[in-house]
Amino acid sequence: MRIASILVKGEPALGVRTPRGMLNVTALDAGVGTSLRGLLERGPDVLTDLARHVAGAPVLSDEEFTYRPLVPEPSKFLCLGLNYVAHAAEATYEAPKYPVVFSRVASGLLGHGEPMVVPACSSQLDYEAELAVVVGRPGRHIPKERALEWVAGYTLFNDGSIRDYQKRTHQWTVGKNFDATGPLGPELVTPDELPAGARGLRIQMRVNGEVLQDASTSDMIFDVATVLADLSVAMTLQPGDVIAMGTPSGVGAARNPPRFLREGDVCEVIVEGVGVLKNPVVRSP
Amino acid sequence: MRIASILVKGEPALGVRTPRGMLNVTALDAGVGTSLRGLLERGPDVLTDLARHVAGAPVLSDEEFTYRPLVPEPSKFLCLGLNYVAHAAEATYEAPKYPVVFSRVASGLLGHGEPMVVPACSSQLDYEAELAVVVGRPGRHIPKERALEWVAGYTLFNDGSIRDYQKRTHQWTVGKNFDATGPLGPELVTPDELPAGARGLRIQMRVNGEVLQDASTSDMIFDVATVLADLSVAMTLQPGDVIAMGTPSGVGAARNPPRFLREGDVCEVIVEGVGVLKNPVVRSP
Repeated sequence: MRIASILVKGEPALGVRTPRGMLNVTALDAGVGTSLRGLLERGPDVLTDLARHVAGAPVLSDEEFTYRPLVPEPSKFLCLGLNYVAHAAEATYEAPKYPVVFSRVASGLLGHGEPMVVPACSSQLDYEAELAVVVGRPGRHIPKERALEWVAGYTLFNDGSIRDYQKRTHQWTVGKNFDATGPLGPELVTPDELPAGARGLRIQMRVNGEVLQDASTSDMIFDVATVLADLSVAMTLQPGDVIAMGTPSGVGAARNPPRFLREGDVCEVIVEGVGVLKNPVVRSP
Repeated sequence: MRIASILVKGEPALGVRTPRGMLNVTALDAGVGTSLRGLLERGPDVLTDLARHVAGAPVLSDEEFTYRPLVPEPSKFLCLGLNYVAHAAEATYEAPKYPVVFSRVASGLLGHGEPMVVPACSSQLDYEAELAVVVGRPGRHIPKERALEWVAGYTLFNDGSIRDYQKRTHQWTVGKNFDATGPLGPELVTPDELPAGARGLRIQMRVNGEVLQDASTSDMIFDVATVLADLSVAMTLQPGDVIAMGTPSGVGAARNPPRFLREGDVCEVIVEGVGVLKNPVVRSP
């Protein structure tokens, strides 16, 4: 199943993408609600229940809805840094011994199709294609061998980064959290549609059609199960929490000459079987 | 005015602390609601309106309520690192040229009186006394000279840190976000009760009554107005957002020998005029 957070006539709703198009499952009057996080908080059987009801939902034409960030305000949004060996090398870091983790906040997130914004203060907006995991149920001290049971599904993330602000100090938080720099979506893809742990999937970033990152999710240093187990040593993971799994090599800042995003560019994060997350780039007025 | 997020008979409520005791303003039936963030989201006059209604609210005895984290789930919780020169030095960092920022997540927060937990995986839970700012209204590109208009009030934070996990990689996020390590409260103190920008206030950490940190909020490298202006270059600040202003020197990890928190310890963060944030320490079972 493929679930989206959408706006219909300006109001939040949940959609399910099927071969017939996007179905408005909020309109079902089956108590689905308008929030993916709220839905997941109801418990482990909620997606199975939803699948049973979907067929009766009205189809939306492409003009009738727009995408919101898949989880507009997760309780936490944790991001892995340097989780692909070749990217760690191009960023001039050693491959990490433990997951390198930073955090994103809601004010920076975007939906599929919404413009990423180059801020007035910098010309160093950079792209990062990433696979992201959405947590399905609460967990602390999750055993690695069972960790994938905590995954509600997978989606795409473009971890847009303002490089000069990211490197202004040794903590990356500010440069990773500019407004309108983090597209998340378009849809939650449930694990039954993908290989276990979303391994072995081709991951790409295309800018204006040009392939600038191209790798496999199997190139991750720490895989999904390892990361869920490791993070949950520290924190209780909650339904709707997002974990972005890091980006492969090929980011703009590491190119010679550097290739930062400019007004008029169009970014596409593509992970085989998960979808395409496409966003234009604009310059702040 | 002093506003608290509390539990009354297990249910969330808002309280206002007065010389008569804690008033349950949620019980007023004046539409105050149960969430400080929700209250602030209603607009700039909401605290003035609340002040007018307070007198009629019922008094709670100390046995009738407990404290929640002042903002149990802020849209963002940003923390300054190394914001006092002597602390930067003891942590063996240079004094920063720009604010060093990391983020905390809701799952780690505690109310006044709730136990801080030494996790099973570490014996390095450390205390950090901090002044925290709660944002009152949305703002981007906030001018520094007017930045204090965006402050809803001040409170106290104990930025409990698991030092070995904090230093496991160069990004501090994991060690700063263990469950039940971040007491926030007890109350929001509105700016009219304090000097502008909460400057010149004595800030202390006491553990079992012993003074282990002792400084002035004027010792901050980046003051409240500077930080609000700087962060809002990157991000839209939202009502209920929390910004912790960093800790002075004297943390446990920098002592010789180190003084980490142990079961049975009692921490008190004290800022003159703001209050006392007191939490016992327990060991994870």
